[in-house]
Amino acid sequence: MINETKIVVVGAGNVGWHLSRALSGVEANVLQVYSRLEGRAKRLGDEINVDYITDLTEVNPDADLYILAVRDAAIEIVAKKIRKRLDAYFDKKIEPLVVHTSGATPTTVLQPFFKNYGVFYPLQTFSIDRPITFNTLPICVDAKRHSDVDLLFKLAQTLTPKVYRISNEERQILHVAAVIVNNFTNHLYTIANDILQQENIDFEILKPLIHETVNKIKQHPPATMQTGPAKRNDETTIQRHLNYLEKHPDYRKIYELITESITDDGRSTTNDKR
Amino acid sequence: MINETKIVVVGAGNVGWHLSRALSGVEANVLQVYSRLEGRAKRLGDEINVDYITDLTEVNPDADLYILAVRDAAIEIVAKKIRKRLDAYFDKKIEPLVVHTSGATPTTVLQPFFKNYGVFYPLQTFSIDRPITFNTLPICVDAKRHSDVDLLFKLAQTLTPKVYRISNEERQILHVAAVIVNNFTNHLYTIANDILQQENIDFEILKPLIHETVNKIKQHPPATMQTGPAKRNDETTIQRHLNYLEKHPDYRKIYELITESITDDGRSTTNDKR
Repeated sequence: MINETKIVVVGAGNVGWHLSRALSGVEANVLQVYSRLEGRAKRLGDEINVDYITDLTEVNPDADLYILAVRDAAIEIVAKKIRKRLDAYFDKKIEPLVVHTSGATPTTVLQPFFKNYGVFYPLQTFSIDRPITFNTLPICVDAKRHSDVDLLFKLAQTLTPKVYRISNEERQILHVAAVIVNNFTNHLYTIANDILQQENIDFEILKPLIHETVNKIKQHPPATMQTGPAKRNDETTIQRHLNYLEKHPDYRKIYELITESITDDGRSTTNDKR
Repeated sequence: MINETKIVVVGAGNVGWHLSRALSGVEANVLQVYSRLEGRAKRLGDEINVDYITDLTEVNPDADLYILAVRDAAIEIVAKKIRKRLDAYFDKKIEPLVVHTSGATPTTVLQPFFKNYGVFYPLQTFSIDRPITFNTLPICVDAKRHSDVDLLFKLAQTLTPKVYRISNEERQILHVAAVIVNNFTNHLYTIANDILQQENIDFEILKPLIHETVNKIKQHPPATMQTGPAKRNDETTIQRHLNYLEKHPDYRKIYELITESITDDGRSTTNDKR
């Protein structure tokens, strides 16, 4: 049974924080959580009522599954420390499964340290201070051994029905796409907010438009929903916008490049309805 | 009373189509609709049960308000034709109010033709075949005469509580911002969709992320919600993504520029939570 799997979650940043809480919510057997930040570790451990540590030399060596929810650059460092702890503790312990939660890093980064390794990648944007609903988000899993894939699948399915087996290569591509639809669109919101703020116009006024933009692609491929001056090759409007953006040279460059890209797309399609 | 105002809607594209239907739904007095496309004009006229025309020499000269919901480049042409019709018909008709629905075009484009002019700009993205809810979208109005501003305000308020008086200059800035949050984010969705399609990965898997990205900014300023490799200056991941994007040189350029812009922002703030 999945709740017999003893789990240690290493990392209490955006992902580790929410994942630990979600796992404890479905009564997975989380033994221990780790954060190098005392306050963070204590808060998380207390909230979900499990042991917490701030030093990996104290990591519980008895877990079946270690989930490394740390920044990409720290995965190897953490893996090395856990390996050291396992080696120091047991001689013949059954090798645990060790996974990271990164979209961008191949699982093979864990290969030098563990016999059984994989990935448990929740494809979502997390912020510590914002609650997250796990049961609508996709989790991408993969592992070297088939039985480990099974285990990760079952664990993920306790959190969400949307579980996918995704290879390293596919996951990396998904991550590029995720950065584009999340980080980059959020940056466009930031730019719009910045422009309006400088003119004392309330960003709120754009929110219905932002929501409708997303609602449209629930049922329609995004390319068919494209509208606007670039799509209809409205050079007068584009020029007006570029003139205005002279006061924001960085934003102007982005405006130009994306406009050009939309216009290029438009040449090969006939989706404009206006 | 607002439903004594006799209205002609000129244009049955994305905006004219939905606006005519919305106005007829609140029992505004729409006398006539125009589209140069016979099928479109007839379908709209029949659906909302009003007279339709496909030739502006037949435009009803007896209206109090003409709403020009045509593409920006057509506003002047249409205005000229309506002026001609008014001149040919009456000598002493009270001058009607004429507005366009464009975010990008100054109202003064109507000045050569009409004494009373203004704008009625619903800030939303419309597609003919997608129903739209007017009562959550903002409408920006303005007019030369104060009494006309009043009229437009009242008319807009029959459709939505979110009515703003917005000057030409402010509207143009709003339009730039609207293009950025709507057209540009939609183009990013298109790019992500395209990348995944070419790898046979289902775009559906990204949708929860897309929705959460938007939900986050309901309560938080977008800059504080930024995450990802650019924000945390994760050069290894950025380089991996750039390597992958070598097969999409146009997208690669966009990736580089936006990443740079996020990184620049990051230098002056300390919002990263990861």
